[in-house]
Amino acid sequence: MIVLDRDQIAERLDPALAAEAIEAAYIAASAGEVQLPTIGHLAFDDAGGDCHVKIGHRRGDDVFVVKIATGFPGNATLFPGVPVNNGASIVLSARTGEVRAVLHDEMTLTDVRTAIGAAIASRTLARSDATRLLIVGTGVQADHQIHWHRALLPGLVDVAVWGRSAERAAAVADRNGAAVVDDLAAACASADVIVTVTSATEPLIDVAMITSGTHITAVGADAPGKHELTEALLDRADVVVADRRSQCLDHGECSVLSPATPIRELGAVLAGTEPGRDDDAQVTIADLTGIAAQDVAIAGVVLAAGD
Amino acid sequence: MIVLDRDQIAERLDPALAAEAIEAAYIAASAGEVQLPTIGHLAFDDAGGDCHVKIGHRRGDDVFVVKIATGFPGNATLFPGVPVNNGASIVLSARTGEVRAVLHDEMTLTDVRTAIGAAIASRTLARSDATRLLIVGTGVQADHQIHWHRALLPGLVDVAVWGRSAERAAAVADRNGAAVVDDLAAACASADVIVTVTSATEPLIDVAMITSGTHITAVGADAPGKHELTEALLDRADVVVADRRSQCLDHGECSVLSPATPIRELGAVLAGTEPGRDDDAQVTIADLTGIAAQDVAIAGVVLAAGD
Repeated sequence: MIVLDRDQIAERLDPALAAEAIEAAYIAASAGEVQLPTIGHLAFDDAGGDCHVKIGHRRGDDVFVVKIATGFPGNATLFPGVPVNNGASIVLSARTGEVRAVLHDEMTLTDVRTAIGAAIASRTLARSDATRLLIVGTGVQADHQIHWHRALLPGLVDVAVWGRSAERAAAVADRNGAAVVDDLAAACASADVIVTVTSATEPLIDVAMITSGTHITAVGADAPGKHELTEALLDRADVVVADRRSQCLDHGECSVLSPATPIRELGAVLAGTEPGRDDDAQVTIADLTGIAAQDVAIAGVVLAAGD
Repeated sequence: MIVLDRDQIAERLDPALAAEAIEAAYIAASAGEVQLPTIGHLAFDDAGGDCHVKIGHRRGDDVFVVKIATGFPGNATLFPGVPVNNGASIVLSARTGEVRAVLHDEMTLTDVRTAIGAAIASRTLARSDATRLLIVGTGVQADHQIHWHRALLPGLVDVAVWGRSAERAAAVADRNGAAVVDDLAAACASADVIVTVTSATEPLIDVAMITSGTHITAVGADAPGKHELTEALLDRADVVVADRRSQCLDHGECSVLSPATPIRELGAVLAGTEPGRDDDAQVTIADLTGIAAQDVAIAGVVLAAGD
C-alpha cells in the first residue's frame, strides 16, 4: 500500500492522460460498464458538515475506488486554515481485494476531474468556432475551469469572469489573465461558451440572456435545491445533455424537467450513439452533477503513473 | 493523517478498552445514537470477489469511520499468501472532515471486534455458572472466539472444538489448549455456551441437540443463504437476541423467522431496557451479523491510543 499526499498526486497527474481517462469513463458509464452503487451519506449536525462516500468499478479495470469527500462549511470561520472540503480516495485491487493506495488528495482530484469533465462537455457541445468563454462564479472551480477549458478548447482565446462579488471576480480574472465583467446579461449574450460554477439556489441565467449558438456547461447544481439556470432556459435549449440522466433528474439542473423530457447522456454523445449539437444555431446545455466513474478514472491515472 | 499497519494497530489495541467500547457501541446503536447509512457493495465477477463499505458515526464522537472490507476467496488458490479477506478503516474528524488516520488492518480489526461482540453476547445471555464452551467451526474466528470468551467469561474453563474437518479442529484445539470433539450432538448436549463460526448454508445444529439452560451465540450467518441453526431451534429458544434486529431478519439466523417474532436487541439488553435471560433453564440465542457501530468503536480505541 502506498500513500500519496496532494503534492505527490499533482506530480503524478498527467493532464492529457487524465482527460483521456475521464472521456473514456463517461463513455463506459453511459454504456453500463461501470458499477456505481448507492452513495453513502453521513450528516454531522453539531458541526454542520457532511460526508459522501462514492464507490465505483469499471468492468475490466484492475482497480476500484472508494472516494470519501467531506464538506464542513464552518471550517472557514471555526478552523481557519483547514479546508472546507476534504477527503481521500482509496484504491483497491479488483483482482485480490488488497489496498493498493491511499490518495490523500484533500479533494484536489475532485476539483480537477470536475473541471476536466466540464471542459470535455463544452468541447463536445460548443460550436467549433467558439472563441468567447464566460465563467460565472468565483470559487476554486472558476480557476480550474479556465485552465481546463483553455487546455481542451484552445480556440477559447477570450475569457471573462462574472461573480456576485466584483472583488472576487476581479481576483479570478487577475490570476488567470482574463477580463472581469459586471453585466451578466450582456456577458451571456456575447459568450459562445458559458460555464456556471456557483452554489446558487435561485437561477442566475434566464432564457432572455442567451443568444442562439451558445453552449452552457452547468456545474454548480450538484444537490437538491441548487439551480443556476431557469426552467424556461432549459425548456428553450435545443439539446440538453446530462453526465448521468438519473442523477441530473434527481438533483441537477434537470430536476425541474419532466422525466419524459429528452435528455441525452454525455457518454453516449461522446460515443456517437446519441447526437450532440446538430447545427451552429442551437442552444446546448450540459448538466453535470459529477459521477463516480470520473473519480475511478482519475485515481487510476495517478496510480498508473507510479507503475 | 497517520497510517498504521496491522502490527502497529495490534500494539495500540488495548483489549479491555476495546471490549468496553464495543459494549457501549451496542448500547448506543440500539438507542438510535449511531448513524449507519446504507452499506455500499461492489461485486467483481471476473475474480469472484466483492467489497463492502460500511460507514458510521456515533452521536457526539469526535471521529467517524469508513470501513472497507474485501473478500476474494479465489486468492487462496490463485494468489497464495494474499489473504482472502482484506481492507482498511479510514478515520475522519466529525468536527472538520479531515482524514485523521488510515488503519490498514487487513481485516484484523473486524476479526477482533467480531469475537469481542460474540463474547459480550455470551456473557450477557449465558448462565452465570457456565463452564463448558463449545466452538463449532475451525476458521480464523475459532481462535479469536476462544481467546475472547476466555477473557470475558473466565468461568469457561472447559473448551472444546468441533469441525467438519477433524484435522482442522485438532489444529485449533492444539493452538488453544482446548479439546477436540467428533460427535457434534453429544458436544452440544453437554455445552453451556456454544459459539458457531462456520460458513454453513445448511443448518448444523438442531433443537434435539440442545439441552435446557444452553446459550448459543451464532456468528457465521452474515449474508443471505447462510444458516447454522435450524428453524425449529430458533422457534424453541426462549430468548432470541439480535445485534441489529433489521439486519438479522434480513440476512442472519433470524431471516427464517416471521418479522413479528419477538426478537430483542443486544444493546437494549445490555442497557437493561429489554430483558435477557430470565432463568437458568432457558435456551438463549444471540444472532450476530456484525454492525458498523463495532467498527467505529474499535477504530476509535486504536486512534485514541496514540493521543
